[in-house]
Amino acid sequence: MARSRFPLRLLFVGFGNVGRELARILAERNAYPALADLDVSVVGLTTGSRGALANGAGIDLRRALREVEEHGRFTPQNPDYASLDSLKAAETLDYDVLVEMSPLSIANRGEPAILHARAALERGRHVITCNKGPLAYAFRRLRKLAQENNAGFLHETTVMDGSPVFDMARSCMRGNTILKIDGILNSTSNYVLCAMERGQTFEQGVRGAQEEQIAEADPSNDLDGWDASVKIVALANVLMGADLRPEDVDRESMSAITPSRVSEAKKRGFRIKMVCSAWREGDTVKASVRATEVPLDHPFALVDATGSIVRFETDLLGKILMTEENPTITTTAYGVIADLYALDSGSR
Amino acid sequence: MARSRFPLRLLFVGFGNVGRELARILAERNAYPALADLDVSVVGLTTGSRGALANGAGIDLRRALREVEEHGRFTPQNPDYASLDSLKAAETLDYDVLVEMSPLSIANRGEPAILHARAALERGRHVITCNKGPLAYAFRRLRKLAQENNAGFLHETTVMDGSPVFDMARSCMRGNTILKIDGILNSTSNYVLCAMERGQTFEQGVRGAQEEQIAEADPSNDLDGWDASVKIVALANVLMGADLRPEDVDRESMSAITPSRVSEAKKRGFRIKMVCSAWREGDTVKASVRATEVPLDHPFALVDATGSIVRFETDLLGKILMTEENPTITTTAYGVIADLYALDSGSR
Repeated sequence: MARSRFPLRLLFVGFGNVGRELARILAERNAYPALADLDVSVVGLTTGSRGALANGAGIDLRRALREVEEHGRFTPQNPDYASLDSLKAAETLDYDVLVEMSPLSIANRGEPAILHARAALERGRHVITCNKGPLAYAFRRLRKLAQENNAGFLHETTVMDGSPVFDMARSCMRGNTILKIDGILNSTSNYVLCAMERGQTFEQGVRGAQEEQIAEADPSNDLDGWDASVKIVALANVLMGADLRPEDVDRESMSAITPSRVSEAKKRGFRIKMVCSAWREGDTVKASVRATEVPLDHPFALVDATGSIVRFETDLLGKILMTEENPTITTTAYGVIADLYALDSGSR
Repeated sequence: MARSRFPLRLLFVGFGNVGRELARILAERNAYPALADLDVSVVGLTTGSRGALANGAGIDLRRALREVEEHGRFTPQNPDYASLDSLKAAETLDYDVLVEMSPLSIANRGEPAILHARAALERGRHVITCNKGPLAYAFRRLRKLAQENNAGFLHETTVMDGSPVFDMARSCMRGNTILKIDGILNSTSNYVLCAMERGQTFEQGVRGAQEEQIAEADPSNDLDGWDASVKIVALANVLMGADLRPEDVDRESMSAITPSRVSEAKKRGFRIKMVCSAWREGDTVKASVRATEVPLDHPFALVDATGSIVRFETDLLGKILMTEENPTITTTAYGVIADLYALDSGSR
């Protein structure tokens, strides 16, 4: 079993936007006074097409960032340069925490991220995943594997970027039974809805989201409600004890929403929002993603562009909402840091 | 030093609305499935005018509740009846956690609650206070005493009832420097503002708040911004490392707000809210409580009646808000339960 208290040695799998921002924060951590006790080093860094680095004493993150910026990849001149793929690194390097930041592949049902996570957990190493695949397709299996190996399996960034939605429900709402969860959790669809309210077409909204790097080149996962389904399933499975798969979600696509429907609702004092919900029905948990008309004085109506919101309904605490305003890539990278602190505090 | 893991033996100081609701939840805990692991007993219960109970094996809470309901106090027929004042109980009974639920006395600068807390902490016993006095008048002193005696000093209910505002900032936002805190934190003033928006006078609003048991018989602490000042000071001192006293807050009273000012603002698309703020200025922290015009599409504009909201601005996580909708006395009592779980998790 790997250590779970600082200092922690990290293996980065993936070096896209989140990985690079996380590396930047770690490299510049002196600029963040409250990070003084974040005692971590990156001992491995593997990518799909940028090469790999490994150094048990800690990779030079500034150099790694500079090389990717200048050359688009790590160079053989880098003293930490290694010939290593992600799975091999997960299986063989000596690290405490695997940080899975490779892109989600729905076509491959979450692979190869699930393989990476499994390789780490089987060795008793902790896993922090930003990739939603392991959560959507293998949550129960991986959680069981983590428990059997006394390892942590954390995933704060997968819903609401860095906002501590899982951590809050896990650490700060103990003793509550969560009766219902509602939220606006997909940025791209919300961005497009807001654009249509301003008079743009659906297509203009999508293009705008792509230009601002909110939507991916293929935005269908967002627009057909798939991303939102994965997120509400993650919340329901982790926090309500459900055993849902994204396919189980009663899912509505955004394709039926036209600018005229949006403006007609607005005239009546409503905004159309893609609302995710999970609720108890007898002994089971149901979930849906639906285009919903919300009145202007409802907190969900204020969620603009890339913001997000979640509301918990509980038996003791009552109704509590968490809102994230204008997240940046720093917010998302912080989610990994929150998980590192959670490991240090003993969370699993 | 007392134990901090379950099972925990509690000493209740005070048996008003919160104390009785907490006792009810504990007596009926089988109705709350997620409380199965809340392993606590109440071994002492002292009040100002209702008598006292003590039983090392656990007081019969149902009987205590019934007696207060039927007789307005504990009866000598109760086998746990004891002749004991709160300070003596704090000094002599064998308990793990003192739960301070006596009413706040501003005239006495937080006493005698501070005395009770000190007596417990000096014996290495944990303190959970619902009374804001110890926080407003003796926070640094008591926190130091707690640290010296390896005891916990927790106070979740003092701001936003049971919503885990301190717990979230402490456990789930580690690594962040909090740059600014804003909130709507006083129910009575918010209730009166909402009533004036509906066309009532200031006095009608206050009477309504009193009838709904939101405001006390003497609502001046709420209406002059004192309660809000105590709360923003608590947040600033605990979460921003400030050393403020309520007197240091740049405080505006509600007395200058008239129904015509409220309706005039509403016509222009604004709601007037009593907004508390704490922010950094160089090396110090400043705080204010101000009647503020907020636009209708601002999250603070949606806080109705007894709801409350807090917004944290941080260096890494960005901006995050927590909203509490329609809290009940159960919500407040849950705040103590949240602190009990926090003790069990090792929080101090």
